[in-house]
Amino acid sequence: MIRVGIINVTGYAGAELARLLYLHPEAKVTSVSGRSAAGKPLAEVFPHLWPLDLRVSDELDDVDFAFSALPHTASAEAVAPLVRQGLPVVDISADFRLRDAAEYQRWYGVAHAAPELLAEAVYGLTELHRPAVREARLVANPGCYAVGALLALAPAVKGGIIEPDIVIDGKSGISGAGRTLGLTYHYPEANESVSAYALEGHRHLPEMVQELARLGQKSESSARVTFVPHLIPMTRGILTTCYAPLVDGGAGGQAKVRGIYEDFYRDEPFVRVVAEPPQTKHTWGNNLCLVYPTVDARAGRLVVVSCIDNLVKGAAGQAIQNMNVMLGFPEATGLDQPAVYP
Amino acid sequence: MIRVGIINVTGYAGAELARLLYLHPEAKVTSVSGRSAAGKPLAEVFPHLWPLDLRVSDELDDVDFAFSALPHTASAEAVAPLVRQGLPVVDISADFRLRDAAEYQRWYGVAHAAPELLAEAVYGLTELHRPAVREARLVANPGCYAVGALLALAPAVKGGIIEPDIVIDGKSGISGAGRTLGLTYHYPEANESVSAYALEGHRHLPEMVQELARLGQKSESSARVTFVPHLIPMTRGILTTCYAPLVDGGAGGQAKVRGIYEDFYRDEPFVRVVAEPPQTKHTWGNNLCLVYPTVDARAGRLVVVSCIDNLVKGAAGQAIQNMNVMLGFPEATGLDQPAVYP
Amino acid sequence: MIRVGIINVTGYAGAELARLLYLHPEAKVTSVSGRSAAGKPLAEVFPHLWPLDLRVSDELDDVDFAFSALPHTASAEAVAPLVRQGLPVVDISADFRLRDAAEYQRWYGVAHAAPELLAEAVYGLTELHRPAVREARLVANPGCYAVGALLALAPAVKGGIIEPDIVIDGKSGISGAGRTLGLTYHYPEANESVSAYALEGHRHLPEMVQELARLGQKSESSARVTFVPHLIPMTRGILTTCYAPLVDGGAGGQAKVRGIYEDFYRDEPFVRVVAEPPQTKHTWGNNLCLVYPTVDARAGRLVVVSCIDNLVKGAAGQAIQNMNVMLGFPEATGLDQPAVYP
Amino acid sequence: MIRVGIINVTGYAGAELARLLYLHPEAKVTSVSGRSAAGKPLAEVFPHLWPLDLRVSDELDDVDFAFSALPHTASAEAVAPLVRQGLPVVDISADFRLRDAAEYQRWYGVAHAAPELLAEAVYGLTELHRPAVREARLVANPGCYAVGALLALAPAVKGGIIEPDIVIDGKSGISGAGRTLGLTYHYPEANESVSAYALEGHRHLPEMVQELARLGQKSESSARVTFVPHLIPMTRGILTTCYAPLVDGGAGGQAKVRGIYEDFYRDEPFVRVVAEPPQTKHTWGNNLCLVYPTVDARAGRLVVVSCIDNLVKGAAGQAIQNMNVMLGFPEATGLDQPAVYP
Repeated sequence: MIRVGIINVTGYAGAELARLLYLHPEAKVTSVSGRSAAGKPLAEVFPHLWPLDLRVSDELDDVDFAFSALPHTASAEAVAPLVRQGLPVVDISADFRLRDAAEYQRWYGVAHAAPELLAEAVYGLTELHRPAVREARLVANPGCYAVGALLALAPAVKGGIIEPDIVIDGKSGISGAGRTLGLTYHYPEANESVSAYALEGHRHLPEMVQELARLGQKSESSARVTFVPHLIPMTRGILTTCYAPLVDGGAGGQAKVRGIYEDFYRDEPFVRVVAEPPQTKHTWGNNLCLVYPTVDARAGRLVVVSCIDNLVKGAAGQAIQNMNVMLGFPEATGLDQPAVYP
Repeated sequence: MIRVGIINVTGYAGAELARLLYLHPEAKVTSVSGRSAAGKPLAEVFPHLWPLDLRVSDELDDVDFAFSALPHTASAEAVAPLVRQGLPVVDISADFRLRDAAEYQRWYGVAHAAPELLAEAVYGLTELHRPAVREARLVANPGCYAVGALLALAPAVKGGIIEPDIVIDGKSGISGAGRTLGLTYHYPEANESVSAYALEGHRHLPEMVQELARLGQKSESSARVTFVPHLIPMTRGILTTCYAPLVDGGAGGQAKVRGIYEDFYRDEPFVRVVAEPPQTKHTWGNNLCLVYPTVDARAGRLVVVSCIDNLVKGAAGQAIQNMNVMLGFPEATGLDQPAVYP
Repeated sequence: MIRVGIINVTGYAGAELARLLYLHPEAKVTSVSGRSAAGKPLAEVFPHLWPLDLRVSDELDDVDFAFSALPHTASAEAVAPLVRQGLPVVDISADFRLRDAAEYQRWYGVAHAAPELLAEAVYGLTELHRPAVREARLVANPGCYAVGALLALAPAVKGGIIEPDIVIDGKSGISGAGRTLGLTYHYPEANESVSAYALEGHRHLPEMVQELARLGQKSESSARVTFVPHLIPMTRGILTTCYAPLVDGGAGGQAKVRGIYEDFYRDEPFVRVVAEPPQTKHTWGNNLCLVYPTVDARAGRLVVVSCIDNLVKGAAGQAIQNMNVMLGFPEATGLDQPAVYP
Repeated sequence: MIRVGIINVTGYAGAELARLLYLHPEAKVTSVSGRSAAGKPLAEVFPHLWPLDLRVSDELDDVDFAFSALPHTASAEAVAPLVRQGLPVVDISADFRLRDAAEYQRWYGVAHAAPELLAEAVYGLTELHRPAVREARLVANPGCYAVGALLALAPAVKGGIIEPDIVIDGKSGISGAGRTLGLTYHYPEANESVSAYALEGHRHLPEMVQELARLGQKSESSARVTFVPHLIPMTRGILTTCYAPLVDGGAGGQAKVRGIYEDFYRDEPFVRVVAEPPQTKHTWGNNLCLVYPTVDARAGRLVVVSCIDNLVKGAAGQAIQNMNVMLGFPEATGLDQPAVYP
């Protein structure tokens, strides 16, 4: 049994790691840290986690594997010494997603705390970088919006069927904004309302651009990618709608596009190409990504819809999937549950 | 005092007409019809309408003005004889929105019931066709998604600042689907979920294409317009996010675009160009459309967000605005209320 | 036109006063204060209030009538000097609801700031104290839960048909907790959940007990009243379910009880005794209270359900109703609108 | 591995059985029936159940254990022959809950289809009837409201600390009403609203009365029990608030009451007596019942709040708990998961 530690268990991603790992047959959470709640029983912070019977500590105890659910900057500072000591780590923060320290500074406004680790960190969208994840000691878990967008677009970009002119319209439940209070997330303000935000540029954009460029073997700057996230009055779920002109103007039709997607994801345990437009509820609480590619023949455009649970495939489940690959467990270990529906 | 009739008061658009007209100082609902509820007091069908003290009848009594909230096809059949008798009518259905009877048949699957009236019917997005509405005896109220999309795009298309390559991502509350039951709208299925639908082509698309072409003085077929509607777990509201490449690649910047929008809507009573991204809740229950245009400089793209209440500016409020213009009342009569927030 | 001031416009009750008064033909909000937002345009704090075109100030300007939406203690301090200067005031806080300064101190934990005004302050549930409200210069607007409970119970208590052994189960939308942030009201925590709170005693209980005693001509201590409030995942609305043993064990039946309720509320503009169990949505945004009394014949118990909008009949609408009575306007002036449904 | 069949898998209880049994290490769903969907793949009816790879049939295949999720009457007809053949069955319908066929006819309006089985059927609230469940071949799974109410009241009734004068105020999410369409459950009508219903008597009342009487060793008729259910705008969860006068007038205080509850539930795997008022979200998706007993000392009244997930502890999870006991598996087999929070 692997002893697992969760750094900063007090946010939603940390709590979701604890919940999902409770079901993992090969790993056991033995240590959880979190400055604000240090000293408290975990069940006092999160009553639903009472079966874990753990106390939140200041620092992790000795463990075999660590997840960091700290915010960016703090995470790099906490994670770097662990990696140097040889502990395998999945970092859920943004700190090791961008390969370019200057790009990191541009988007996050601070110098990177451990730039020397960027070269070896692996971008942990398992479906795109499985061999590298297998060898990694530091995996950067992708941003929740990036998971939805990249899994929706990867087959098309890799297959070279779209122009580098992409619109990504993301719709996220409010848990994506975390557990920190804000008027925007105050129930009476957020309920019965939808809004767009971060129109000047959301921080998940540069990682999308980086990974799309790697998929397409093109320089990053050549793709015109617009990403607009939206806040939806629900707790969990991201639906991403992606739009791009088809190279053949749609001449290949729906069947060609579906064929490319089905081939790309044929053996993936956590991506399903579905025959009907999916709803986020079909992924509630589990690690699936549902992808629905279609062709707008009138406009010659590819339209792809994807659905995930932002806290699972968009965060904690994706992180455990990475852990499974890093440690040589079957990839779906502990993650094979139907969504909770309705 | 004008005597007003509502044909098919038993749906959400009909009920909303009754609610809003209760506040109108120059018009009074004196007759309401609706086959399924004929004979019942209106307050039995809609308890919130008890102050109206009306009984639902099979056919309208004698009135000075009529709204039809019937479904398409049935509406044309009911409305045509009234128009021929000289009664001014606003039709909320889709029947008189498309100028081309063949296009109507293509999208609605039936031959038009009164094609001879298409030439005189006016597309009732007041902001675009005010002079024609003033002279009309038959106004075709626009579809709810079309209101959001057209008000978001009109200044840009009219101003010639975007390429004819447009993505419209619509997000609607569930009342937009009407009061007819369906598993998709059953609370446990719709709650805590978001989904895309009508990916093969939504019926509000052809009216958007028709009106964008008229704005741009181009043939309809030249614009590549993709429209994808989404179902959002809330009762009211549509947020529309529109994307299109800027002719100047964004060189003019945010200020130029805002200037064009502010000029276009300067004297409009029901459209506000706002300085911060709006939320649908800011229009809950009233006739406003909030428009937020912005530039994605990285991608050289215009992004415009608009918000409306789908039952008010997207249906009943827009219809009353048209009535006011047709009858020579000040345009905002009876419609000047703040949104209900939070 | 009466010039009206709103002290502390920055909470939900203050904002709702501004919204409703916009529709009032005899009164105009000319001054709004609020420390946290002093100096800002009101429309920056609440975009839906942009038509008011006011700036939030530190102190009220000269007005003819004032509402205070300050929290308790602060409200008494702000209101007392105004009352002494002769300005008519409706205080929405709890400060002048309890007639006994010792009881106030017991529940609110501080000495009353203006105990000398308690004798003249009128408890502003208009339906129970209309003559006194008419003469008052200081009206204490009732608590939102108290409105729902007292209107549900008043006819039965006054009619002497129940034992003094009452259970009040309140269910409130989350705006009732105000605009101040708290983890309990953070969207992901509050959504898709229901909870009971204040089980050790909610502050609206003593005013319920005081008013029930006055209705029943009994000493307060003789009634056993249990009140448990619950948080419901919706923005607006309170449904109150009240239970009490019937003196006659239910022998009079449903008809007797309904008769008593219908007589009691026959001429009330804002209370309707309804024939079917109501839902809070039937009062969304308006000043109605719907009351549904029924008899559980098996248990010999009266069960009464009432519905209000907590921000309107439970706060701002009730306050304006009081203002109308104090100033001699017809009681429903500016408040006669159907609920916004659905 | 036990082969399990689910009769009428097409409702929410049936689907939830399939979801939960997927996680059960000793049982496997091998056959599912459902008339309306016969012939279809289960994944077409419920996309979240695609991993089960089953086809809905008209009749169950050969299985070792059956659950019936049919409506009442139909369920007795389907279940009786299976029981007679010796197949162990848990019936989720109401058909075998009441021991008295006349009482059944009074509440359900039809003669019982298999009255000869009533004597041996065991009321399957495991916590109250574990020894009988162990020996049973036919277990009647309790109604969802009854689970919440009985677990909240059992220790008090058994302990003899309350008067037989009980108010049960139930608050349920909308999935409790099932998957059959109805205007009441249409999203725009149910959202942002709360209502009471079945005020003339809900069908879960007689089973509550029957079981409370057995707990208290009193004749059923002696207890005055009022139960009012409420519809809450959320998908899952029941919060039940119970009120009853304390025999000692509250003199024993909070500590005495808590002691009685903690003793009663000390060894129960699925009931927790909690120290803070719970919220339904703390049981989302799992089989827990959280119970919070407290004393209103002012009124001398016991107030108990309980929370369950209506589809799990209120239906499918409770049914699997019964199966585990009937088949000799450890009681929590396959049911030991944290709630999905937030």
